[in-house]
Amino acid sequence: MSESMRARVLIDCPDEKGLVYKISKVFFDNLLNIESNREFVDPDNKRFFMRSVVAGHFDTKELQEKISVVLPLNSNIKVIEPAAKKIVIFATKESHVLGDILIKEADGELDAQIVAVVSNHDNLERLVRRFDIPYFCISADGLEREEHEKVLQDLLSGLEFDYIVLAKYMRILTPLFVNYYRGKIINIHHSFLPAFIGANPYKQAYERGVKIIGATAHFVTDDLDEGPIIAQDVIPVNHRFNWQDMQRAGKDVEKIVLSRALAIVLNDRVFINGNKTIVF
Amino acid sequence: MSESMRARVLIDCPDEKGLVYKISKVFFDNLLNIESNREFVDPDNKRFFMRSVVAGHFDTKELQEKISVVLPLNSNIKVIEPAAKKIVIFATKESHVLGDILIKEADGELDAQIVAVVSNHDNLERLVRRFDIPYFCISADGLEREEHEKVLQDLLSGLEFDYIVLAKYMRILTPLFVNYYRGKIINIHHSFLPAFIGANPYKQAYERGVKIIGATAHFVTDDLDEGPIIAQDVIPVNHRFNWQDMQRAGKDVEKIVLSRALAIVLNDRVFINGNKTIVF
Amino acid sequence: MSESMRARVLIDCPDEKGLVYKISKVFFDNLLNIESNREFVDPDNKRFFMRSVVAGHFDTKELQEKISVVLPLNSNIKVIEPAAKKIVIFATKESHVLGDILIKEADGELDAQIVAVVSNHDNLERLVRRFDIPYFCISADGLEREEHEKVLQDLLSGLEFDYIVLAKYMRILTPLFVNYYRGKIINIHHSFLPAFIGANPYKQAYERGVKIIGATAHFVTDDLDEGPIIAQDVIPVNHRFNWQDMQRAGKDVEKIVLSRALAIVLNDRVFINGNKTIVF
Amino acid sequence: MSESMRARVLIDCPDEKGLVYKISKVFFDNLLNIESNREFVDPDNKRFFMRSVVAGHFDTKELQEKISVVLPLNSNIKVIEPAAKKIVIFATKESHVLGDILIKEADGELDAQIVAVVSNHDNLERLVRRFDIPYFCISADGLEREEHEKVLQDLLSGLEFDYIVLAKYMRILTPLFVNYYRGKIINIHHSFLPAFIGANPYKQAYERGVKIIGATAHFVTDDLDEGPIIAQDVIPVNHRFNWQDMQRAGKDVEKIVLSRALAIVLNDRVFINGNKTIVF
Repeated sequence: MSESMRARVLIDCPDEKGLVYKISKVFFDNLLNIESNREFVDPDNKRFFMRSVVAGHFDTKELQEKISVVLPLNSNIKVIEPAAKKIVIFATKESHVLGDILIKEADGELDAQIVAVVSNHDNLERLVRRFDIPYFCISADGLEREEHEKVLQDLLSGLEFDYIVLAKYMRILTPLFVNYYRGKIINIHHSFLPAFIGANPYKQAYERGVKIIGATAHFVTDDLDEGPIIAQDVIPVNHRFNWQDMQRAGKDVEKIVLSRALAIVLNDRVFINGNKTIVF
Repeated sequence: MSESMRARVLIDCPDEKGLVYKISKVFFDNLLNIESNREFVDPDNKRFFMRSVVAGHFDTKELQEKISVVLPLNSNIKVIEPAAKKIVIFATKESHVLGDILIKEADGELDAQIVAVVSNHDNLERLVRRFDIPYFCISADGLEREEHEKVLQDLLSGLEFDYIVLAKYMRILTPLFVNYYRGKIINIHHSFLPAFIGANPYKQAYERGVKIIGATAHFVTDDLDEGPIIAQDVIPVNHRFNWQDMQRAGKDVEKIVLSRALAIVLNDRVFINGNKTIVF
Repeated sequence: MSESMRARVLIDCPDEKGLVYKISKVFFDNLLNIESNREFVDPDNKRFFMRSVVAGHFDTKELQEKISVVLPLNSNIKVIEPAAKKIVIFATKESHVLGDILIKEADGELDAQIVAVVSNHDNLERLVRRFDIPYFCISADGLEREEHEKVLQDLLSGLEFDYIVLAKYMRILTPLFVNYYRGKIINIHHSFLPAFIGANPYKQAYERGVKIIGATAHFVTDDLDEGPIIAQDVIPVNHRFNWQDMQRAGKDVEKIVLSRALAIVLNDRVFINGNKTIVF
Repeated sequence: MSESMRARVLIDCPDEKGLVYKISKVFFDNLLNIESNREFVDPDNKRFFMRSVVAGHFDTKELQEKISVVLPLNSNIKVIEPAAKKIVIFATKESHVLGDILIKEADGELDAQIVAVVSNHDNLERLVRRFDIPYFCISADGLEREEHEKVLQDLLSGLEFDYIVLAKYMRILTPLFVNYYRGKIINIHHSFLPAFIGANPYKQAYERGVKIIGATAHFVTDDLDEGPIIAQDVIPVNHRFNWQDMQRAGKDVEKIVLSRALAIVLNDRVFINGNKTIVF
């Protein structure tokens, strides 16, 4: 008989009575052990979310079908075998977030393999090459936004990946591009959203005289800086910080927040629920 | 037919395959809707913990029995109808934690009714009486520790309550007393345990030169400052704080941490698991 | 000879070389000991800020004049003998922030005396009277905003006070009122400004799906929610919080943040610098 | 005439009346502008600490002498021209803290040059070499502690450096070694000291059931885990974390806390005051 295996079961569906019973019955009937289990019902939209980790002997596809049968219409179900995801990183010039991800991957602590780093500039190439990771410099000089993205998409179409991580990628993506990779683009924004949307949040924060600054990791939607938030964190500042000091202090928060968000996303611990997230 | 009602179901039992299925089957068979559900398996002790909120028509005792039947030996099960708990507060001289609880109760935000305030001093009487709550001054002057506790126990035996809240009660309780009310005494300790166990933690913190101080709410066991931790929080300090400044700044953390712990305890969201807690 | 006394010296003036020397020379020549001393130069506006605590024998007015002499044109200087400030509290219906301040004053921990509590409703009267503090219910029913404020101002004109503290006062004040008490009104806003300006920030936060909520204490200017920020703090939330849960959790942050801001203001540790503050 | 230059002036001396005046007079007489200035008097030891940044035309040695003249006996004074410090990093096997420092240096954000990385193992060599930094593997196998440190000291004696940074160096240093480099060794400890002194703090934290874990950066003294604390920070954990989860989550805090401590140390913003620090 085959080895015992493990799967993450992710379900979101209209709420109705008996869902936990029906789903856990499938697990029980298939001799699967539930190692962890989290549920949530969105009271506004009457939608049920569940993430289980089960262990036993099963065929992934078959299990998915067996569960599907007990769920109502308009259900989503994924049965995922834990494995390192593949990511493409977009960056521009700053290396603090990118560097943190590179170090984590080299360390075996990323839960993902970096397939490529793409930048519209060349100054990060040296760093990326140190880690023996493919680097693509795709300059936007002289290109319309759509033309530039066309080149990006051509490149991406030749790569296999689960997520695009914007590690301080400082260009705005068009709705066309964003919708094509819907639910697959994660961004780190250098403010505590929804405060300081738009350009140079640190300068905005300085000018407003706030006593706390932060960073926000979110899924990218076609509504700039408005996508579902995955993780946020903050640090205190004071009147002695000019905006460059805030920017510098903020770098550590940016990388920590993205790091937390990636741990959540790459371990299939997040559901997108409208413009919000459910994080188990 | 009777009104639909709601209950909190708290189960802890040895872990085994199928528990979620078996328990949710009882809910399903009794036409109960699961409004929220949290589970956890302690991997060290192979013990299963579950807290469900269910709604429907049922008899509390009957439901408890029906669930008991599907659980293994050595299981604990409680089916609790949500209702304000009753608490007795022990205090000594400081009023910041006590005052916070009084304000919350007057506000209807405590999830509990304060049955009495007991102190070994009389200076809090005026404050407590302002809120029309019975105040008992039981001085320890000239009494052995056991004698004093005897008087306390005589008083308590005439009161109906769920928990004793030590709101900066500065006397050590004997193992005899603690064990008598096992799992029912909650304390707020003015340090980030296990740092600074014992007397005057703020002075200890000052002398050690820490940059952060904190507070810890925990269940009281006969091992002083070693009981299961329910909630903790911290605030930054710096070299400009002397120990009295730390004490003063710490007061706000103490009351916030106890407030959070009480919200957890009074809503039946905590399991004691050896010297740890599971908070759902 | 008279007792040694202590004063807080607050100076803000155009920056120029030698200010620390010139000011400390006045202290030295007058045999005053500097117990603490903080300076800051705003690099944008080339303005110098200094707060010293000095001890010795001196006449307050005389000392102020001696320092004035060495300062450039357009300087502000205050020599303040430490003493409990007087405050008037404005509230509406919620008691958590008000209650916290009442408990602190009863405890001798407020650094201020509460002269009166004013509300546009009567439901807080019972709580305030428990603390033997004058309560004025000034209903706004049937009054234009300006008429209501006229009544408030009539009342205030008969009181002696240093600051008006808006402890969840839920009415907008007119620019006329605000400017009349410029620099003397402190508000607690139930969001992490500048996020969620305006009505029901908790609902806005819920709808945006943030993972952190906060509170902001600020001086009130005629630009709603835009005044100089004194203190801010945050707490984590998650998808399980509906907006009422956020509101409830936020109450503890609101009172803590206002408490911190009051400690700063009442001890003369803050300068208003345009729409920012300098906190020493 | 020479270019205007800038210096950091660090003074600690017995407290006495007039120090600010006397020191600022030296600055004034030498036409120096005070760009920032912080003072503190330790009330326990009656010791005065001051850090000023001054700008103008001066000879460093001469300025130091001029200030010395106005200070009491037993004063320490340093006049330091801002320049990148030089550091040697000690590591063992873990790369998260080391990697963070390497990325920061490559970025020009470290305020220091890494002279060498020294480890008792060879597995970090590849990472360090990626950054073109000398790597010395000095195995402790078969060596007494003193013998191993003798080899380290021989190596160090050939290097020029200001500080030794223990970036998760997992060996205990002897008092002999520590005292030789007194005030020059900075360590990151993986707990919120003084909680969980000694081996495997994360396991200790897990077993105690704490709800918050942290990290502490401190100067190393011959009293293990007892040196003056420079910076601390914490993150929340819960019952779902086993000790390996805590360890993993703790890695981000460790590197952030060390990063903050290095920014303080490398910019001459810290005084050691007995077993405490004063951070300006």
